Amino acid sequence: MFDREIYIKRRAALKVKFSDGLLLFLGNEDSPMNYASNSYHFRQDSTFLYYFGISEPSLSAIIDIDQDEIILFGNEMSIDDIVWMGRQKTLKEKAFDAGLNHIQIADNLDSYLLRCKQQNREIRFLPPYRPENKIKLSQWFDISVQELESSASVLFIQSVIAQRSIKAAEEIAELDKAAVLSADIHLMVMQTAKPGMYERELAAKIQEAALASGGNLAYPAILTVRGEILHNHFHGNVLKEGQMVLNDSGVETALFYAGDLTRTFPVSKQFSSVQKDVYNVVLEAYTNAKDALAPGVRYLDVHLTSCKTLAQGLKDIGLMKGNVDDAVEAGAHAMFFQCGTGHMMGLDVHDMEDLGEQYVGYTETLKKNTTQFGLKSLRLGKALEAGYVLTVEPGVYIIPELIDRWKVEQKFSEFIDYEKLEQFRDFTGIRIEDDFLITEGGNRMLGKYLAQSVEEIETIRTNAF
Amino acid sequence: MFDREIYIKRRAALKVKFSDGLLLFLGNEDSPMNYASNSYHFRQDSTFLYYFGISEPSLSAIIDIDQDEIILFGNEMSIDDIVWMGRQKTLKEKAFDAGLNHIQIADNLDSYLLRCKQQNREIRFLPPYRPENKIKLSQWFDISVQELESSASVLFIQSVIAQRSIKAAEEIAELDKAAVLSADIHLMVMQTAKPGMYERELAAKIQEAALASGGNLAYPAILTVRGEILHNHFHGNVLKEGQMVLNDSGVETALFYAGDLTRTFPVSKQFSSVQKDVYNVVLEAYTNAKDALAPGVRYLDVHLTSCKTLAQGLKDIGLMKGNVDDAVEAGAHAMFFQCGTGHMMGLDVHDMEDLGEQYVGYTETLKKNTTQFGLKSLRLGKALEAGYVLTVEPGVYIIPELIDRWKVEQKFSEFIDYEKLEQFRDFTGIRIEDDFLITEGGNRMLGKYLAQSVEEIETIRTNAF
Repeated sequence: MFDREIYIKRRAALKVKFSDGLLLFLGNEDSPMNYASNSYHFRQDSTFLYYFGISEPSLSAIIDIDQDEIILFGNEMSIDDIVWMGRQKTLKEKAFDAGLNHIQIADNLDSYLLRCKQQNREIRFLPPYRPENKIKLSQWFDISVQELESSASVLFIQSVIAQRSIKAAEEIAELDKAAVLSADIHLMVMQTAKPGMYERELAAKIQEAALASGGNLAYPAILTVRGEILHNHFHGNVLKEGQMVLNDSGVETALFYAGDLTRTFPVSKQFSSVQKDVYNVVLEAYTNAKDALAPGVRYLDVHLTSCKTLAQGLKDIGLMKGNVDDAVEAGAHAMFFQCGTGHMMGLDVHDMEDLGEQYVGYTETLKKNTTQFGLKSLRLGKALEAGYVLTVEPGVYIIPELIDRWKVEQKFSEFIDYEKLEQFRDFTGIRIEDDFLITEGGNRMLGKYLAQSVEEIETIRTNAF
Repeated sequence: MFDREIYIKRRAALKVKFSDGLLLFLGNEDSPMNYASNSYHFRQDSTFLYYFGISEPSLSAIIDIDQDEIILFGNEMSIDDIVWMGRQKTLKEKAFDAGLNHIQIADNLDSYLLRCKQQNREIRFLPPYRPENKIKLSQWFDISVQELESSASVLFIQSVIAQRSIKAAEEIAELDKAAVLSADIHLMVMQTAKPGMYERELAAKIQEAALASGGNLAYPAILTVRGEILHNHFHGNVLKEGQMVLNDSGVETALFYAGDLTRTFPVSKQFSSVQKDVYNVVLEAYTNAKDALAPGVRYLDVHLTSCKTLAQGLKDIGLMKGNVDDAVEAGAHAMFFQCGTGHMMGLDVHDMEDLGEQYVGYTETLKKNTTQFGLKSLRLGKALEAGYVLTVEPGVYIIPELIDRWKVEQKFSEFIDYEKLEQFRDFTGIRIEDDFLITEGGNRMLGKYLAQSVEEIETIRTNAF
């Protein structure tokens, strides 16, 4: 945990946005794997972490604006709990660490909420994503599970997002640490991979390194020779000469801040000539996108810069044709780049995604394009502000099923050379990704430099053999 | 997956237990960590795996006894799904692998169930442990979440337990594999541990080895110098000379069968004299318990054998006193051994715990003792049958908080020497655990031999330096 003063300040800054009513914060429970007591590793809700810092299951909290009181709800350990889980801090000690004076046993939350309902006081909650919290909210407020999201408080959502979007110094230090730890792991993977290895051997080393650092992975590692599959968690392939490995993985620090890096490298000592050409197109898109990051710049425009660079490069290779601006305007580049150039990052690798992309990445006047293939996967579009932390991750992905679908319709045939594309059918995918802080003067890459250029990567790979 | 014929046979054997109605099987969904799309590794429900074998989220199945039809409910992939997750088998292909001919889209399950309800046909379900499945059942059957467990079909529960309890040849092969992989990891840990290491470095290596094997961990590893905390998942201590490491970890194979082994070894090259004495008491309890395993023997009696051996050994050391049988009868040994000697094992490390301990481990005539400290944590009491797979895991745990509580009351002071016990206050804990198959002739240890004796362990530790 950070120092208690930090949580006190954060809550005070949130409180002033509300003139009455209550704010309800639900921590997470343990999540069962194959039966109730065999649970996944515990991950606290990020908003709960942000305002209260305590990473333990079965806690809730209320900021009661009317009574000017903040209460932590939880249970003390029984002797059975101590036998099975060891002695831990008392609820009072935990509350103290979070800068709180008021505690109540968890069972009292029901009656507390009931009393407030009877007094017609407004009880605001955030959209739940854990089913156990959906059950609780549904029962407390007599709202069907399906309607909970639309019943969440927009003011509460927007206030939390406004605050969590601007990273404070102590958060930036953690995000730097996450990026450094992640870069170390990426280098280790590039130095370790050999033809004949299973993907899972490398994925296992990534998991090991993250755990040994005292943190964990911020998200399930993508470690694959099939880099064109965007969220590929299959690790059963054997690495073969001539293939590329796409490694998208990042560490979550002991204080739960995320890193999110991607590198793509050849299984052999060197990229093939074609791989090198496409790699350099992606690298140029990455460079142009990150160079554009600055306060006031819309991330949508950063994304379009990246798309246009990709389209121009792919045109040079012969995969695209026609006017590049028109091609991107129409969305033809999404044959090769089906997703967004980046997203906000913080306590969540897709920061605050549970609170709603429209609120996190867009505004009243800049709504998300939910129809165009490609743009609909852009999680961040709005103008950047100093203190934002986000990723830049352009890529080129050749997806055989997508070629087949679009080719039949001759979709965007004025911009896509389908004949040439057939030669790239088994190319797979390339992505390059780093994390950036928006500063007053522009931006700063988080963490430390990790090999980017073809030459740098080939040197590491050559030494790996 | 096993061969499709295996699933066909298993379902046929279950079907004959029912004369009418329907059996509803809910597969698991992805479990969110910190937002909906950042999920934990997927773990399918074990009963779903047993009858259908398909390890993918969002599947359900119905065995319709009246219509003599088995239907798999699921969804086909959209092009968006393919872009993000890669092309996978069609629902029809998945159904084929499980030996099924009938498929329906997931959304049809609602109307299927509604129609059956209107026809007053009995729809049987198992007790849910995942909150997302609680929500579904609650909405389909208009039963509150709290009442679902008591609304589950006892005949369905008992039929599944009867079948899953007796392991078939293909299951025993997997359980052997899990135990071999687990033993390899335990040996590696004993060979790797060094004073000055963090527990988490070893826990990370355990996780790595499990993933690299193509499986996973069957449960979160317990790797601790505080072995007296039974389910201790904290890995933040540094290993110091003079301490012991308790490693309770096991591999889940690629087909989801569990291993569950424990070894306790000194951080130094050798156990201290006191550690050695207590270790040998635990080893004798382990030996006596496993030697007693045979068809027809009640596991409750195996447990009592283990408890009496512990009590006698602790009496020899001077920690207990008086008549050993009386001490165990009264429950005084639970100061040192607060849990059960073992549990069923299979697709779950605590096999079928979601279906209810009373049904899995006990009978109509042998009910679980839910009041005596110690016995209330014994998950298995009933007479063993050939084909059962279970663990034997006696231990000695010195829990300071428990000493303090009982000492004030002078609880069992005729059997416990509290003065001597104070000298052991910081002893921590020792457990030895292996997995066994009950055979017609007695029992067989699963997997392969892993160092047990003080001498064997000290030799490994000496070579580790």
